[in-house]
Amino acid sequence: MRMLDIIAQKRNKQNLSSQEIRQVIREYTGDLIPDYQMAAFLMAVCINGMTYEETAEMTLAMAESGKKLDLSDISGIKVDKHSTGGVADTTTLILAPLAASAGVPVAKMSGRGLGFTGGTIDKLESIPGFRTSLPYEEFIANVRKHNLALCSQSNDIAPADGKIYALRDVTATVESIPLIASSIMSKKIAAGADKILLDVKVGSGAFMKDLDSAILLAETMVKIGDIVGRETRAVLTSMDEPLGFAIGNSIEITEAIDVLSGRGKDSLRHLCLTLGAHMLHMANLASNESEGYAELEKLLGNGEALQKFGEFISAQGGDPNIIKNKSLLPQAKYEEDVKSNHLGFVQKIDVAKIGSIATILGAGREYKGQEIDLAAGMTMRCCIGDYISANDVLATIHSNNKEKMEVARNMIIQAITIGNTKPVKPQLILGLVDKYGFQKL
Amino acid sequence: MRMLDIIAQKRNKQNLSSQEIRQVIREYTGDLIPDYQMAAFLMAVCINGMTYEETAEMTLAMAESGKKLDLSDISGIKVDKHSTGGVADTTTLILAPLAASAGVPVAKMSGRGLGFTGGTIDKLESIPGFRTSLPYEEFIANVRKHNLALCSQSNDIAPADGKIYALRDVTATVESIPLIASSIMSKKIAAGADKILLDVKVGSGAFMKDLDSAILLAETMVKIGDIVGRETRAVLTSMDEPLGFAIGNSIEITEAIDVLSGRGKDSLRHLCLTLGAHMLHMANLASNESEGYAELEKLLGNGEALQKFGEFISAQGGDPNIIKNKSLLPQAKYEEDVKSNHLGFVQKIDVAKIGSIATILGAGREYKGQEIDLAAGMTMRCCIGDYISANDVLATIHSNNKEKMEVARNMIIQAITIGNTKPVKPQLILGLVDKYGFQKL
Repeated sequence: MRMLDIIAQKRNKQNLSSQEIRQVIREYTGDLIPDYQMAAFLMAVCINGMTYEETAEMTLAMAESGKKLDLSDISGIKVDKHSTGGVADTTTLILAPLAASAGVPVAKMSGRGLGFTGGTIDKLESIPGFRTSLPYEEFIANVRKHNLALCSQSNDIAPADGKIYALRDVTATVESIPLIASSIMSKKIAAGADKILLDVKVGSGAFMKDLDSAILLAETMVKIGDIVGRETRAVLTSMDEPLGFAIGNSIEITEAIDVLSGRGKDSLRHLCLTLGAHMLHMANLASNESEGYAELEKLLGNGEALQKFGEFISAQGGDPNIIKNKSLLPQAKYEEDVKSNHLGFVQKIDVAKIGSIATILGAGREYKGQEIDLAAGMTMRCCIGDYISANDVLATIHSNNKEKMEVARNMIIQAITIGNTKPVKPQLILGLVDKYGFQKL
Repeated sequence: MRMLDIIAQKRNKQNLSSQEIRQVIREYTGDLIPDYQMAAFLMAVCINGMTYEETAEMTLAMAESGKKLDLSDISGIKVDKHSTGGVADTTTLILAPLAASAGVPVAKMSGRGLGFTGGTIDKLESIPGFRTSLPYEEFIANVRKHNLALCSQSNDIAPADGKIYALRDVTATVESIPLIASSIMSKKIAAGADKILLDVKVGSGAFMKDLDSAILLAETMVKIGDIVGRETRAVLTSMDEPLGFAIGNSIEITEAIDVLSGRGKDSLRHLCLTLGAHMLHMANLASNESEGYAELEKLLGNGEALQKFGEFISAQGGDPNIIKNKSLLPQAKYEEDVKSNHLGFVQKIDVAKIGSIATILGAGREYKGQEIDLAAGMTMRCCIGDYISANDVLATIHSNNKEKMEVARNMIIQAITIGNTKPVKPQLILGLVDKYGFQKL
């Protein structure tokens, strides 16, 4: 079939066959379809949608467009966790060693940060000596030995997704549930996991602004998982305020160490335990989530999760002494506490703005390949509902550049709304989508 | 505003401002917007539509993207006629001299044929010596002197339309009422006419397959004309069988001469008189259409229309003797009458197939710039409802290539359905759309 006819079909709200979808992905990846035709196709999908079956087929075609990781030499059920992206989202750094210490084999590929979303790979690279690029054999051997290896996603994994994403980014076709779902799931499937746990962020600081669209995205991904035979669950969590305190690279490593040491911000700790509990249950290492949750709490308390983190750092060439001596991590030259002009309750935090402050400070990228400052960032010092008295600190800026600090200070004050009435604290964990559908949590 | 945001707005079914629409047209024509962004935009328009105001703004922006013809030196109301394209549609060749002989100044730009639709410029080029490319001054002088000049549309007229059409053609975004309407109207407006008369074809051999979509297209164009201050009317006519008998270039000139001589096929003659009557009424040269119709019938009968045709041919360097001696026109080496295998009534004619037979014979183009055979084509010898007896001829093939004749013969037999029951003859003139809306005729 001609690409022109396939585009026309989707424009006319007709469903595409498996062959047609596979042809589009194969020929676009092979540079046989010009960008302008793919752009028209993507816009038609964006507006007219795709069925679960079409989306699953597209996901598989994208997953099969490059190398697929073979994890069959690793025994046990490999559960991969993916977050749709938030601010101060340090979960992977905590959850990976935590789940590994409980016996879940974690063979994870992660990405770099873009826009206001940080990337686990960038954060890990702030650890002196740490290697984020591992040969396949070493990656597998590390998971077998330590239950944990984490490396940067290679371009060989789902190259169709990379090419399509770059085009979506410049054609206003990013905001499409089937396209977002197939992009995420294709990479997870190609990365070889048996089961997939998703953390779908909802709120002003997330891609999904409201619960309904987040549920729709979660249901689509769970359904794709079902169709392609990889059990998938999605936890829906609020992104109406930054998840942890730290936003940056080395400072998020520090916060991860805090949580792994049994301390840290309650919400971040609770989310890691909740996600971890699902991982244990999915890996058949706990008979239900509460059993898993309790088991993981123990591993945070007795230092085993933290020990696993050190073991993992060593295995990938990093200096494990950072755990005890945080000053071995990159430190910003300047630190400044930002104080409030007003007294009152923190009523709202503009999460997207907070994310872009960190980017302005150099912690994140505005475009692919941009160099970042591993020490820069900010530490939130307040949460929604806190009462701010005179001299209370809203946030601390970490920077190597005085001018940027000036900009950041003003933006922080603008991003945090303070008022007289005490607001309702946003609920962190909003619900779960699994094969039985959505349930409120 | 960024192009990305404009695309997103149309994707989200929001209306665009005049400035936004003008920016898109200006920047795309100036090569500042890449094809992939324009393709996404066009698909969003295709699916989500545009208001009349948006469409009119786009039309004006396209009309103003290049040179605009200034016809102000020509006195009288210039009425331009445009057909959306059909098979055996010889109307322009007849209507232009006919209306000119009645006093309507006809300053017309026409195009070349593409696909199964013929082009007036190709047909005129079959007249020995005829020049279809005229300098502006000569074009205006000819209209002033003879009430008639006809030349090929220059690339300077609405270049935005040319560039957008080429992209629509390869991105499945041709079938969109606002895009079709703005494409047609932008060229007519740039070509300088005061008023516009449209012949919107409906049926199996036309772009608009059903009356409802043809009415919608007509209403859109009439509304654009209203918004930009150029009175526009659309006559809706059936394209369920070829309009005239001749399909080709020199053979259509011959058929035009027949009609201008007061003979010719009834339906073709009736349509020319109907369109001409509207032109006379719009040009304030008749107080209503029936007065105009009667006046034009007279001019066909008394030879004045035919004389105007000869005068026009001479003025543009062609040999007017073709009127009396048709053998001066290019003649095909071979002629063959195609007879039916069956007896019975002609029930259906596959007009698109008939159009492509002419193209196969060399009378039309499959791609832009393709050379054509001015003598090739076919003459229909039957209409829907005719009874075909033994030895009756269905059509005559004119060709310079024996092999192509073989293919054409088989296709003609397939294209004409013969059966036992007498079918209802399709009604030729279906309705009119003017500023008061649609009325059945």
